[in-house]
Order: sequence, then C-alpha cells, then structure tokens
Amino acid sequence: MKTVGVIGGMGPAATLDFLIKLHAATPAASDADHLHVITDNDPRRADRNAAMRADGPSPAPSIVATVHALIAAGAEVIVMPCNAAHAWAGELVAAAGPVPFVSIVDAAVAAVRVAAPGTTRVGLLAVEATHEARLYHDGFGADVTILAPDMAAFMPLIFAVKAGDTGPDVRAAMAAQAAALVAAGAEVLLAACTEVPLIFGPDDATVPVVSATDALVTATLAAAL
Amino acid sequence: MKTVGVIGGMGPAATLDFLIKLHAATPAASDADHLHVITDNDPRRADRNAAMRADGPSPAPSIVATVHALIAAGAEVIVMPCNAAHAWAGELVAAAGPVPFVSIVDAAVAAVRVAAPGTTRVGLLAVEATHEARLYHDGFGADVTILAPDMAAFMPLIFAVKAGDTGPDVRAAMAAQAAALVAAGAEVLLAACTEVPLIFGPDDATVPVVSATDALVTATLAAAL
Repeated sequence: MKTVGVIGGMGPAATLDFLIKLHAATPAASDADHLHVITDNDPRRADRNAAMRADGPSPAPSIVATVHALIAAGAEVIVMPCNAAHAWAGELVAAAGPVPFVSIVDAAVAAVRVAAPGTTRVGLLAVEATHEARLYHDGFGADVTILAPDMAAFMPLIFAVKAGDTGPDVRAAMAAQAAALVAAGAEVLLAACTEVPLIFGPDDATVPVVSATDALVTATLAAAL
Repeated sequence: MKTVGVIGGMGPAATLDFLIKLHAATPAASDADHLHVITDNDPRRADRNAAMRADGPSPAPSIVATVHALIAAGAEVIVMPCNAAHAWAGELVAAAGPVPFVSIVDAAVAAVRVAAPGTTRVGLLAVEATHEARLYHDGFGADVTILAPDMAAFMPLIFAVKAGDTGPDVRAAMAAQAAALVAAGAEVLLAACTEVPLIFGPDDATVPVVSATDALVTATLAAAL
C-alpha cells in the first residue's frame, strides 16, 4: 500500500467528507488494512474563485508548499479533494516530481463515462473557477456540452455549506439548481465541487448523479492499494 | 490560531471521529475560521496492548517520527486521539520539545471532575494497555477508584469497531459492559478509548458519560484558538 498525501482545506468539511468516504470504501478487517493517509487540512489557502478572476492571490504557492511537506512526511501518492484547485494542477504536478498525482477531474470524467455512456450533455454542479478554468470542458472534450448552474444562486449555496449550513433549505435550493440543469437538457449531473455531495445526492435528481468526490475515492484506492 | 498536528491511526476511524468533532465544535462562519489541522493517520503503528504486555514492539518510534514530521510541516500544538498510546507520552513530549502536547488523559480527567464533581468511583471503558499503564489511576489520583470492564468481553468490541462493525449487537454489548460497571458502583463512565464513542454515548447509560474524545476536542480548541 502506498501512503496517500491529501492537500486539504478547500474546504475543511469537504476534506473530511473525502477522508470518511475513503475510509469507508477501503476493504478492511482491521486497522492495519486501512491506508496510511497524511492530510494537510489548511482552510486558509487563497480563494480559488477570486484568483481565477484575477481578483486575489493564487493558491498555488500554498498547494506547492503542502506537496513538498506531504512528500517529506512520506506521501507516495498525492490527491486534492477540491475541483477548482485543479486549475493549478500544473504547478502541483511540477512540485510533486516523480510522486504521482491522482486528478479528481480525470477520475470524475471516467466515472461519468461509466454512469452515462455516450452522454453529450453534462450538468456541471461546480463553482465559477471550475467553469472558467474549463477543467471539465477540456476533460470531456468537444463532443460533450457542459451546462452551468445559475452562478448567482449556486455560489451562495457553496458558501452556506462552508459556513456549516447543510439544512433542508440549502438542500432544496441545490436540488432546484440540479433540476434546472436537467430541464435544460442535462443527461447526467456531475457534482464537481466537493461541497456539493454534502447537500446533494443521487436521490435528489431524476438523472444519474456522479460525485467527483466518490470518483476520487475510487481512483485513490486504485492508485494506493 | 495555532496549527494542530494530529498523531492519528490508532485507530483510523477514531482519528476521523476526532477530526469531525473538532470541526463541528469550532466556531466558524467560513472555511477560514476553521483550524489548520495536519493529520498523520497511520493505521500500522505497533499495537499498544501487545507492547504494554511486552509481547510486541513499542509504538514509540512511530509516534516520535510523526511528531518530528508534523512539526516540520508546521504543527504548533500536538494531540494524539488514542488513550492507550499516552503510555508513551514521555517519549512524545521529549520529541516535541517546545511544541506543546495536549494530553487526552489530562483533558478527560478535567472533564470528569466537571461532569461528576467529587466522584470517587469511575467506570473506565478503556483497553488493557490503558489500565495496565495506570494512565487514569495516576491521572485521578488515590482518591478515585478505577473500575475496569471485563476485558475478555470488552476487547473484542474494540476490535469489532476497528473491523468496521458499529452495529446494534456491538452497541448492545458495550452498553452491557457499561451497565456492569454501574452495577459495581461506578458513579460516572469515562469512554477512554477513542473507539468507544463510535458505539456508545450518554443515552446508553444511567450515569453521566464522559467522552475522552470530546474532552480532547475541547482542550485542543482551547490550546489552538
């Protein structure tokens, strides 16, 4: 088994959600069967949306510093349970050198292709930065149309989760965003912000829902076991 | 806020339980209000019970190496959400040097004194190593009698949790252990194994229940905020 290094804190609750799901998905009959996971859950990395708008500093220096610290501590595989931060994956991969990085974008694209074979319209429940960086546009390629939620309504839901609100109103509002994407033609919904699965799941939609977090869990296990 | 370093993996689910409770207990209106927490969740540290029986290697070298790695990564406060491993707290504190260590034993003793003022009989839901190392005997002092569960029945429940079983049978069996301690005179129950709160809580007993995990959360926040 390889030691997994986790670049966390974007946000901290989403990082814990990933860690819980990674633990639950690991086949284990005792403590020793679980992965060795080193997590730097730093909630004060620079805002990804502001950076993408050129309205704030880049999170890359913090991500790069964490990569170095995780590798120094023994990490043999690096993951980052935050979709938007993958806009700086190039800097991350350069810092990691020979240590492999498991991309949440690659994992989620593969999971969508399994859940909705041949789909041409993906509803992307992701923040501004993820859309603006075209992470999933590039990940899926030209044959897939990416449908975006109403950012003026969607972004406050993510900040609500970050403020600790995962109550029924926030859940209902996220389900409404998803329903609007389906009404606009989405054949599959991709929860591509790690806060989204905290308030939205397969039972909340009429089309298949893929969680990028779950996809990263599966890909992390494949890389580490 | 100080960066918290967590010596985890004993066991890995208990470490996640601590992290979730630390997150939930932190007053926060956004990501940035949460603590920066670096966790080395290493589930393959040497078995504490075997080491205490002189029947296996000591976990101290692994704990000491993690202390050094956490401090190198930026930790300014060290915690270890495992009661039994506090038998090696001396080695840990020596390795940490000027970086403070928040003891789960000190935190739990203080919490019991608040929950059950003047108590003289504490039911200690803790593994063999914790009893044999007399961590809580020494923590409470001579005025408090420590009552131990039936280890032949108690230890398999901890291993069941470590194997992922937190179902009703395991919960009922832990409640029966607690009830036996109350029948033997325990005025308060101290869940002093970080696996215990995963299957046992205040609603499962007729006397006050103190969770050492919760006490460590409170003490960690006090040290870091």
